[in-house]
Parts: sequence; C-alpha cells; structure tokens
Amino acid sequence: MPDKLILLIHCPDREGLVASVTEAIRRSGGNIVDLDQHVDAERGVFFMRVAWTPPADDPDGEQRFRPAFAAAVATPFAMNWRLERAASRARLAIFVSRYGHCLYDMLARWESGEWAVDIPLIISNHRDLEPVARRHGIRFEHVPVTAATRGDAERIQLELLGEAGVDLVVLARYMQIVSPGFITAVGGQVINIHHSFLPAFAGGHPYQAAHARGVKIIGATSHYVTAELDAGPIIAQDVVAVSHKDSVEDMVRKGRDLEKIVLARAVYAHLQHQVLVYDNRTVVFD
Amino acid sequence: MPDKLILLIHCPDREGLVASVTEAIRRSGGNIVDLDQHVDAERGVFFMRVAWTPPADDPDGEQRFRPAFAAAVATPFAMNWRLERAASRARLAIFVSRYGHCLYDMLARWESGEWAVDIPLIISNHRDLEPVARRHGIRFEHVPVTAATRGDAERIQLELLGEAGVDLVVLARYMQIVSPGFITAVGGQVINIHHSFLPAFAGGHPYQAAHARGVKIIGATSHYVTAELDAGPIIAQDVVAVSHKDSVEDMVRKGRDLEKIVLARAVYAHLQHQVLVYDNRTVVFD
Amino acid sequence: MPDKLILLIHCPDREGLVASVTEAIRRSGGNIVDLDQHVDAERGVFFMRVAWTPPADDPDGEQRFRPAFAAAVATPFAMNWRLERAASRARLAIFVSRYGHCLYDMLARWESGEWAVDIPLIISNHRDLEPVARRHGIRFEHVPVTAATRGDAERIQLELLGEAGVDLVVLARYMQIVSPGFITAVGGQVINIHHSFLPAFAGGHPYQAAHARGVKIIGATSHYVTAELDAGPIIAQDVVAVSHKDSVEDMVRKGRDLEKIVLARAVYAHLQHQVLVYDNRTVVFD
Amino acid sequence: MPDKLILLIHCPDREGLVASVTEAIRRSGGNIVDLDQHVDAERGVFFMRVAWTPPADDPDGEQRFRPAFAAAVATPFAMNWRLERAASRARLAIFVSRYGHCLYDMLARWESGEWAVDIPLIISNHRDLEPVARRHGIRFEHVPVTAATRGDAERIQLELLGEAGVDLVVLARYMQIVSPGFITAVGGQVINIHHSFLPAFAGGHPYQAAHARGVKIIGATSHYVTAELDAGPIIAQDVVAVSHKDSVEDMVRKGRDLEKIVLARAVYAHLQHQVLVYDNRTVVFD
Repeated sequence: MPDKLILLIHCPDREGLVASVTEAIRRSGGNIVDLDQHVDAERGVFFMRVAWTPPADDPDGEQRFRPAFAAAVATPFAMNWRLERAASRARLAIFVSRYGHCLYDMLARWESGEWAVDIPLIISNHRDLEPVARRHGIRFEHVPVTAATRGDAERIQLELLGEAGVDLVVLARYMQIVSPGFITAVGGQVINIHHSFLPAFAGGHPYQAAHARGVKIIGATSHYVTAELDAGPIIAQDVVAVSHKDSVEDMVRKGRDLEKIVLARAVYAHLQHQVLVYDNRTVVFD
Repeated sequence: MPDKLILLIHCPDREGLVASVTEAIRRSGGNIVDLDQHVDAERGVFFMRVAWTPPADDPDGEQRFRPAFAAAVATPFAMNWRLERAASRARLAIFVSRYGHCLYDMLARWESGEWAVDIPLIISNHRDLEPVARRHGIRFEHVPVTAATRGDAERIQLELLGEAGVDLVVLARYMQIVSPGFITAVGGQVINIHHSFLPAFAGGHPYQAAHARGVKIIGATSHYVTAELDAGPIIAQDVVAVSHKDSVEDMVRKGRDLEKIVLARAVYAHLQHQVLVYDNRTVVFD
Repeated sequence: MPDKLILLIHCPDREGLVASVTEAIRRSGGNIVDLDQHVDAERGVFFMRVAWTPPADDPDGEQRFRPAFAAAVATPFAMNWRLERAASRARLAIFVSRYGHCLYDMLARWESGEWAVDIPLIISNHRDLEPVARRHGIRFEHVPVTAATRGDAERIQLELLGEAGVDLVVLARYMQIVSPGFITAVGGQVINIHHSFLPAFAGGHPYQAAHARGVKIIGATSHYVTAELDAGPIIAQDVVAVSHKDSVEDMVRKGRDLEKIVLARAVYAHLQHQVLVYDNRTVVFD
Repeated sequence: MPDKLILLIHCPDREGLVASVTEAIRRSGGNIVDLDQHVDAERGVFFMRVAWTPPADDPDGEQRFRPAFAAAVATPFAMNWRLERAASRARLAIFVSRYGHCLYDMLARWESGEWAVDIPLIISNHRDLEPVARRHGIRFEHVPVTAATRGDAERIQLELLGEAGVDLVVLARYMQIVSPGFITAVGGQVINIHHSFLPAFAGGHPYQAAHARGVKIIGATSHYVTAELDAGPIIAQDVVAVSHKDSVEDMVRKGRDLEKIVLARAVYAHLQHQVLVYDNRTVVFD
C-alpha cells in the first residue's frame, strides 16, 4: 500500500478554499482519496482534512509541496495547517497508576499489530504494573509523585520522554494531575481518559457521584489534557446503561470496558491524523 | 385479560421478607406472575415489586388483602408500601409551552390506545398549541406565567387539576419552574423532561452549553420534579451521538426525538407502577 | 437564509475530480459550505456531495451552471450526477395500513414545521386512519388491495400520486407488497420501514421470529424499496435492547418507537439530499 | 464477604412457587439478597434465580439444604434446578485460532483479578498465539484440525480438557466447527463469539456479507454452542454504527472491540450463574 499524505487545515472561511487546496494537490501530481470539509457557519471557520497518494516515483514530492503550498495557498488564506505522512510511526508513552485495564488493552493492540506504533516507555507512580511492562519488553519507570514533589517528578518524566523520543503521552487511568508546564513541554500531545460522561462528574470519584445521583447511564470521555482539569477538548465519548441494581462496584466494572474502548478510539483517531483542535473543541474527521 | 394487583415495597432489609410477602399473597389466593426484588446492600434497604392475579371469583379480595397484609406483614417489617390495580386508568394533565414534539407524541400514544390513560387537561403559558389540543377534543387552558405572577398562576393550575381529577402532571417541555408548594399539592406526581444528560447541563440552554463544550454525545433525562431544579429522581435517560458537524440547531433537532422517547419511557414506567422513589433515586423494575 | 445548491455525484475514480468540481463551482461564483467526498477503493468509485451558496444577485446562475458543468466536468469524467435546490419543497404521499405510529409521527413533524414538505395525500388499504388524515386536512384515499386486485389498486394509486404531484412515497407500515412496475413508475422514490434489523427477519412477523430466536436486541431498518422484498438499499437502522422478560407484545411496543424514529431519519436524510444509491447500497452523507 | 448460594429454577408455572422456594430458604436460615423471577405466560414456564447468604456458623448447611429442598419443593413442583456457590472458582479453557483480540482481553481480565477464574489450558489449531499463552504461564496445546482429522483432534482436545479439569470452554474466535459429540462431552458448556448480529450473517465471512449488504450497523453475538452452527441460545449481543466510509477492514477493526466486549459479558454472566437455558433461548438474570 502506498504512503499517503494528510493535510489538516483550519482558517477563516473564504470563497475558493477547497478549489485552491485541491488544485495545489493536483499540481503536485497527487490523487485525492479522501476529503472531508466543514464550515462552522456561526464562527466563520473553515476546517478540512484531505488525504492523497503522491506520485509513486517522486520521493522529494513532499519536500517540494510544503513550501509551494505555504506560498500559494496557506499564507494567502491565513491557514493554520499541518502535513502528516500516514505511514509515519508514532511513539507513545503510557502513564499509569494502579488500574491496568487500559494498559493491557493498549499493549494488546500494539503487540497484535492493530496499532502501528512504538511504545518505548511506560511511566507509573506505583510499581504494580511493572511486571506487565517487563513482560512485553517495554521500559518501565517508577516515578513516585506527591503534591509536594510534582515539579521534580515532572522534570524526571520529561527527561525520560525526551530520551525515548515520544510523540504522544497517553494517561491510561494515571490518576494524577499534570501541570500546565508539563503539557506545554510535550506540545499538548497528551490524551486522558476520564471515567465519566464529561462535563458531568468531573474531578475525583465519578462512579460514586453517578451512583449517588441515581443516573441511568454512565459514560467515559477521552480528551486532550489542558491546564484546566477535565476541561480539555473532547475526542471521544461513549456510554453504557446502568440500573438501580448496579452498585458502585458494578459501575466500576462496567466502566472499565467503556474506558478502554473510548480511550482506544481517541488514540486511534489521533494516530490517524483525524483530529483537529479549535477553540477547545475537536473536529474529528471520520 | 384478568386484572392484576401490584405491590411496591421498600423497608429496612431483614430476613424472611420475600417469604412473608409471598406467603400473604398465597393465602389470599393470588398467583404471582412477576416478582422483582433488590437489596441495596450499602444502605440495608429492601425493594420489591410483585404482581399477581387475584382469584377470579372474589371481587372483594383486594379490600380484604389490604388490612390483612398491613397487620401481618407491612407493619411488623416497617414497610413503606402501596398497592395498585394494573387496570386502573390514570388521568394525566400535560403542561406545555411552545414546543409541541412531546405533546404530539403523547397524544398519538393516547389516541392510538398505546397508553391506557385519560388526558382531560392541557395547560400552557402560551396559546400556540391550543389548536392541537382542541383537535383532539381535550380541554386547553391558557395560564400565562411570569416570575411575578407564578403564585397566582399555580393557584389557577391547581384548581384546574383538581376539577379534572388528575393523578399525574407531565411537564412536556413546559420551560417554567414549578414551586415546591405546587409539587406538594399534586402529591409529587410530576414528571419532567430535561433536554440534557443530567447532571450535565442542568438549567437553561443545555444544547447551547453542550455545543460550546464540544461533547460528542447529547442526552435527555426524565425525572420526578422536586424542589431543587433538575435535581429530582431520574426515571429514564438516553443519548444520541453528535459530531463537530452538528450546529446547535442540529442538536435541537436530534434532541427532539430523544426527548419525546425518553419522556414516554418514563411516563410508561410510571403508569405501569414500575417506579419506586427512595432517597432521591428511583428503582425502576422492568 | 439564502438558498443552497447541492450536487451529488458518483463516477469512476480519477485524478483531479475534486479540483475540477470545486473549480467549476468557484467559476460560477458559488461559495462552498459543505463538501463530503469518498472513494470506494475496492470498486474504484468516487462519491461526492457538495453544497454551496450561489451569488445572491444572480437568479439565473443555476440555469447557467447546469450546461456548463455538464460540458466541462460531468461528461469528461463520465459522472452520474444530480443538482438539487435545498429550498425546494418535496411533496410526500404516505401509504399506511392499520398501524398509526409512523403516520402520527410524520404528521407531527410536518405540522410543527420540523419538515419543510407538503403532504397532499395519504393512501391506505383500510379506513382506520382516515380520521387522522381528515383532522389534518389531508386527502385520504381508501384503496383496498388483495393479491388478486393488486394491479388495479396500483393503477389507482399511481393516478392519485400523479394528480397530487408527489415526489416521494413513504410506506409507513403499509404491510403490502408493491410491484416492480409501481416502483419504476414512481421513479424508485419509495422509502419503507421494516420492523427488524435487516437482513435478519426479513418478510412477515419479524417480532415473532425475533422472540422465537431469543435475540437480545431488536432493530428497525428503513430502505428504498426495490423489486426484491426487504432487500433494497438501506438508509438507516437502529436497535434497542430486549430481554427474556419481553414478550412479543413488548417487542412490538418497543419496536414502534424505533420504527418511527428510524423512518423519520431516513426520510429526513432523503429530503436533505444526503443519500446516493450505488450498487444496491447507499452513501449517506452527514 | 460471605459466600452466597445461588439457586436457578425452571418448571411449569403453578401457584405458590415463589412462596415455597423462599420459605425453604428461610427455614434453612438463609437471608435472600437477590431474587429475580419471571413467568413466560405464553409457554406457562416459571423461571427464577435467587441468591442468599447461608448462616455463617453452619458449614454443612448446603449439604442439608439440597435433599430437603429436593423433597419438599423441587420434586413436587417438577423443577429443573441447580444450586451453585458464588465463591466456587470456574476453570476455563480457551480455544483460539489466529486472531488474538478476545484471548488478550480474557487473559487481562483473569490476570488483573477482574474474573475470579482459573485458566489452565489454551488450545489452538495454529501456533501464532503460543507466545501469548506461555508468557502468562498457561499451558498451550497445538491441535491441528482439518475436516478429515476433526474426530481425532476432538479426542485429543477432550483428553486435554479432562486432564485440566475444565468447567467451561470458550471459543474465542476459534473459527472451527465443533461436533455435536464434543459439545455433549463437555456438558454443553461451550460459549462462542460470532462476529455478526445473529441471525443475520450466520456462517463464514460475516463482515464481507455485511459490507456487501450495505448495513448501517454491525453486531456481535455470544451464544452457547449447539449442534446447529450459529443457532445456539444467545447470551449477549451488541452493535456499533458503521457507514459507507467503512471498508470491510474497518468493520473488522470496529468489530474486534465489539467481539471482545460481548464475549466477556456473556462469559461473565455465565460465571455469575445468571444464565438459564430453556427451549434454545436464554434467561439472563441481571
């Protein structure tokens, strides 16, 4: 299967945007295989994802396309854009605490080849899941964290991430707050799973809170992490029915399956370059 | 089809509860057709719904059962209980404002015989839906409400409800706050539909808020109305997926279908005597 | 809100398709507000829906666009295409039998303005729902049908449809087979709701069959009608959970809500010109 | 947490059933914590699941209860019944082929303690997943199967199951037919996951068939295996939305998550003694 180039754009809406972008791709010899475009009419913002196969015999095509596109299209239309290669292999670090279900699930996807990624590093504030990491031959680093030592811990974490050349940090039920400085340092590429249907039950103990409120449905939310806790751009959500028969423990059990599936959907969409963030919301092209 | 008796119970959990209740029904000559029982282990509370067919040739059976059950079972076990006839026909009043989708839906269920109820009265603070009520031959009363006149308006509403002999008030997108006094006066039998996945987006303009937050799922919640706004016991909830493509108007449109279905489920469960309220939560036997 | 033009295309996939179409729209002075494009890689087929606002001051723009687009783009690329106006008002005929839930639901959407359509005609093989039609001021025609008289009945129906200038026929639980000749005569614009998750339980009595099989989920399917019964292109499907507690009657009850919502989604997508049929499947742009 | 006894019953419906059973439990000193009962009115069959905590200081209580219950209740009412201990630890064998997602998922649930089971044996007709089994310290046996050697292979499998003392066989995408003789030999305790919404797309290649039919939802079904392929009693089903954008490969990917979750739900319900089979259908008490 040939590599594909993927272009993600947002900019002020103007006439001729699609025609200009697609014309630039045609001129480069590319063949568009998928194009999804959307205008937020209320805000006047244009969003677009377009994927194409470049000419087979032109290894430098991407390098020529970038400046040509920037000059002829992106700059005149004041575009916010990025160009990705579908075949590039992302490098993930997974942060965990004591709950293993999301970690197990991600490692299975990686090992079975479902996800074409590298996972060079697992970091945890506990040692419980170290054997799981070791068994898969993945470096495990125990970095204890307390409110008092968070700054030092994050310095160590950032060093480890730098060494490992990581593109994306996944908080797989990490249960710790990360600081704005940390988020900035990793370029905002941090995905979290929260075990509630946000914005309901933000913060700690969402299953207890859901049980106390007597809801008939519980949810899970995967989002990019931002400075404000549980308030980052939502990538994926899903729910499952509960009833008065479900204790908090039952909700925790049902929620585990939800959490791992919703987190995996969000990470997959990110890896496929389907997600664009704008104004604390996501556009998820599918 | 013979009539059924339905007994709903909650009380402190103790040994022998189920045996005592079922033995009392057996002694009365009843044949149990459905029994659902649940213990909230954390709170030590016992919940039960049991339905049975009484002997065919004993028209006074129910009248004898009540005091016998009270003396032999309910009082010794400190039960909170009620006994209902499946064949009794509830009398509903519908409160609406300007949005008709829930009203249309309920009237269709009533007219087609899907719901075995009487609907003697529709009350609204606007005249928009008067023709719909008139066409079905249902009394329509226009009772304007402002913050200043709420007390007077509720006095008029309560008089109308009293005249019509109403058992249940359904707020079908009524869009007005009802006072604690009103709720007490109608015996707490008020069901509302809120156009969000409570407790997310309580209060006004939930679709706008959901859109601003960038959620990927919207919901609707039907609940008994209590003194605290949007905080009463939840009877039914459901959700539908949305995406970045959905404007607030799209959410309103998708939400309409959700609202009418969720409200109808809640009202149906109430009419089937499947709902028990305890500690601001519901047990919905199904 | 200004009118929009909507172009639906499918054709063999080739390079430059998107650029050619969008360039043609730009030349006509149009501003693209929504573009969705998809390539079926396996079959090598290109699908596209693009919506744009034409210049405000150019009432003849659409008339000029058609031949220009045909000559410059559609013909060279061997396109199968149609151009629609978003503001055009479709004319629906509803065929019913004795079950009213889908009819009530559609009439409510029409009367409340949720659907911008005209409904000049309701046809039924029974008189049960005549009062519903009359009450809304819609012509109701009773056309009895038996296997022996189907030919004659369809001739009468087609005459009535012709008189009423109908664009789309909706079989709202019509419960009768329509002949290939009838389908051809109305240009294939016939949408049906089948009360199962097709292809499971095609044919008659799907709830009985679902109950006998002991499924845990029931469904509904809305599709274009083709010569082969229950085998036409699927537009929308949805499901609801059932359990061993649900009798056939319970499934019928739960199914009613599913049927009316799924049918309404399919009709809405059709009315929004979001549906393209190819090779007995649909592309539903959303 | 104290052990619980769980009694599962089906028998012809008669008056006094619930009272008789609960009275027998009360006489044994048990305290009922959960009782769910259902009458299939059409067939006149009574179903019941009741769980209770026996007296703490009576280790032989269960042994006394069995004959007393049999004599006083079960025999007079012609009951089909079984009594289970909640604390007993089931022994599972997993049969796999080449697809690992269900295996990974089950091993994670086992290893993390989510499932209180033993998994002494994994059998496969391929060697692909041997490293996964070994890594968890579970015996892996490679038993090649062809149509010609099925009889011999099943003899070997049954010997291995006997040695391992297995209670339940889970076909985790095993992709092979098992013979009626094999099913009988393991006492019918075989759970399979089929990658479609049965009865739609029974047999091989369901995702290809679903794609060809153009469905808008795909499903997965977990069921007990019976002599007739894909026709055994259904324990759990679930679905996920698909669109025209989803290729067969996309359906396979989305289906993987569905399959593992649905299989896990079915196995969990079985392990909790929540499932009763009657007339090729299941009653799943929850």
